[in-house]
Amino acid sequence: MDAYIAVDAGGTQIRTALFAAGAQEITPLVRQSRPTRSKPAAFDVLTSAIEEIWPEDMTVCGIGVAVPGLLNPATGVICFAANIAGWEDFPLKDKLETYFDVPAAVGNDAKMAALGEWQYGSGVGHQNLIYITISTGIGSGIICNGQLLLGESGLAGELGHITVIPENGPMCGCGKRGHLEAIASGTGIARYAAEQLANGRASILKSNHPSAREISEAARQGDELSIEAFERAGTYLGRSLADMLHIFNPSILIFGGGVTKSADLMFDAIHAAIEDNVLSPDYSNCLVITYAALGDDAGLQGARGLAEMSFPVK
Amino acid sequence: MDAYIAVDAGGTQIRTALFAAGAQEITPLVRQSRPTRSKPAAFDVLTSAIEEIWPEDMTVCGIGVAVPGLLNPATGVICFAANIAGWEDFPLKDKLETYFDVPAAVGNDAKMAALGEWQYGSGVGHQNLIYITISTGIGSGIICNGQLLLGESGLAGELGHITVIPENGPMCGCGKRGHLEAIASGTGIARYAAEQLANGRASILKSNHPSAREISEAARQGDELSIEAFERAGTYLGRSLADMLHIFNPSILIFGGGVTKSADLMFDAIHAAIEDNVLSPDYSNCLVITYAALGDDAGLQGARGLAEMSFPVK
Repeated sequence: MDAYIAVDAGGTQIRTALFAAGAQEITPLVRQSRPTRSKPAAFDVLTSAIEEIWPEDMTVCGIGVAVPGLLNPATGVICFAANIAGWEDFPLKDKLETYFDVPAAVGNDAKMAALGEWQYGSGVGHQNLIYITISTGIGSGIICNGQLLLGESGLAGELGHITVIPENGPMCGCGKRGHLEAIASGTGIARYAAEQLANGRASILKSNHPSAREISEAARQGDELSIEAFERAGTYLGRSLADMLHIFNPSILIFGGGVTKSADLMFDAIHAAIEDNVLSPDYSNCLVITYAALGDDAGLQGARGLAEMSFPVK
Repeated sequence: MDAYIAVDAGGTQIRTALFAAGAQEITPLVRQSRPTRSKPAAFDVLTSAIEEIWPEDMTVCGIGVAVPGLLNPATGVICFAANIAGWEDFPLKDKLETYFDVPAAVGNDAKMAALGEWQYGSGVGHQNLIYITISTGIGSGIICNGQLLLGESGLAGELGHITVIPENGPMCGCGKRGHLEAIASGTGIARYAAEQLANGRASILKSNHPSAREISEAARQGDELSIEAFERAGTYLGRSLADMLHIFNPSILIFGGGVTKSADLMFDAIHAAIEDNVLSPDYSNCLVITYAALGDDAGLQGARGLAEMSFPVK
């Protein structure tokens, strides 16, 4: 029997799972989690976690790995991985193939989550899909005509880094100003609330630098500033998504990430901004807007999908 | 011998051409142009122009048509065609197939021009390409991973209608405000100059409502306002294109359309804005930025490419 190994190499933990080839079940046969920043280097943690789930009675056809950061999917070299020390210009694909003697493929974690949602989650059956994950940052993955959008060197699909405040916008994690991520991520929402508090705005928020979660809780208690902070993020998201409808004309938008736990605080604003900004109702009439179904497993499922696509059973 | 018929159904003229199947030559075997708004209806003009070039000694494998406007490439129904009266909800594909008894396919003219440049022009050999045409409006066509980007119902790739001035931007031809087309097209350049003249700006421009061409001529004579009008358009274009690099990670950007005759007036600004706004030099380092090679024939060549792809020789 044939199987695939999927890895979600996150900044806090490395998770591995074994899947039977061709199975539609989203539950893995076995799984293993380990903290990324334990004593041995991340690659050693990774190889031991894989060894632990390596099947004795099945043939492993390939390994798929989701990595948070910039990488080249063709060469499998990680340019850098967020919060994983030592993975700068790191040839992860080659190292895994040498170690385990099976083929390996690597992908960006947000793109892998999009792939997972497309193949096993909310996006099943769609051919044109935008997945956007909103947490500390904003990541995304796009399926065009039944293919994951990668671009020439795997750098496509960075919706978080489109410019939405062209003049003097807030600083983004990438070092540029005015990007969507700087405004509509959890970090952006928290920054806006802190700015307003510093300007003397009244609020029940206790900290001068509240977290997105604290702002969400205050919003639920009716705090005007906190409600506004989420609605403002929703408006910017909706405007950018209207642009993305003009560009990709998808049949489904899927929202994932931690901030979607507060989605009710911004979804009205997102919907209103899409409707206000869309060129023609033809773009939004048949559009499904929904949440990710796989939760924290989206990246792992995407890594599995990547392995299945890259190394089909002969 | 097998052949294809290509049609560029423009608002001022309908052009038809016959191409030998599989030939790499960009020169058609025969061609025919007719004014669109002559006495008979546009569809009758179209059918007579096709009849005139219909070959006696070759088999026509299919007809490809480029149309300026909104259409559904799957059904071949034109929602509306700019400057072609009577083509509202017009089933062009079905009508052509019934009339000529050969298969037909239709595509948006900017997307067909992108396809033409990709298959026979400046984009040959690239798999990830953005084509942008700047004239009265801004059109575009995108090739992702060797496929024309159409989206779920053929409405994708409308780069002219992304929002670049979110608050109180100028009115776009589509009825929304602040779109790239409203700012960086010939119309947008002319509007900006007229606004500045109305504000009392000094200029050698004679008219209070100069055309983009008049502004271009004045810029070449050193007129400060005219130079600024083109540079401003270039800056907005460059910023939007930086966003598009983050989204598509193409290997080539191709500029077409009438305003590119004044490209020297805005290319420095375009390049500077791309460099200023791009997330990482990885997006621009290996990027080719160039002009369309096929001129006015890009749409016709794209219609030919569409026919060849849609109806391959058996």
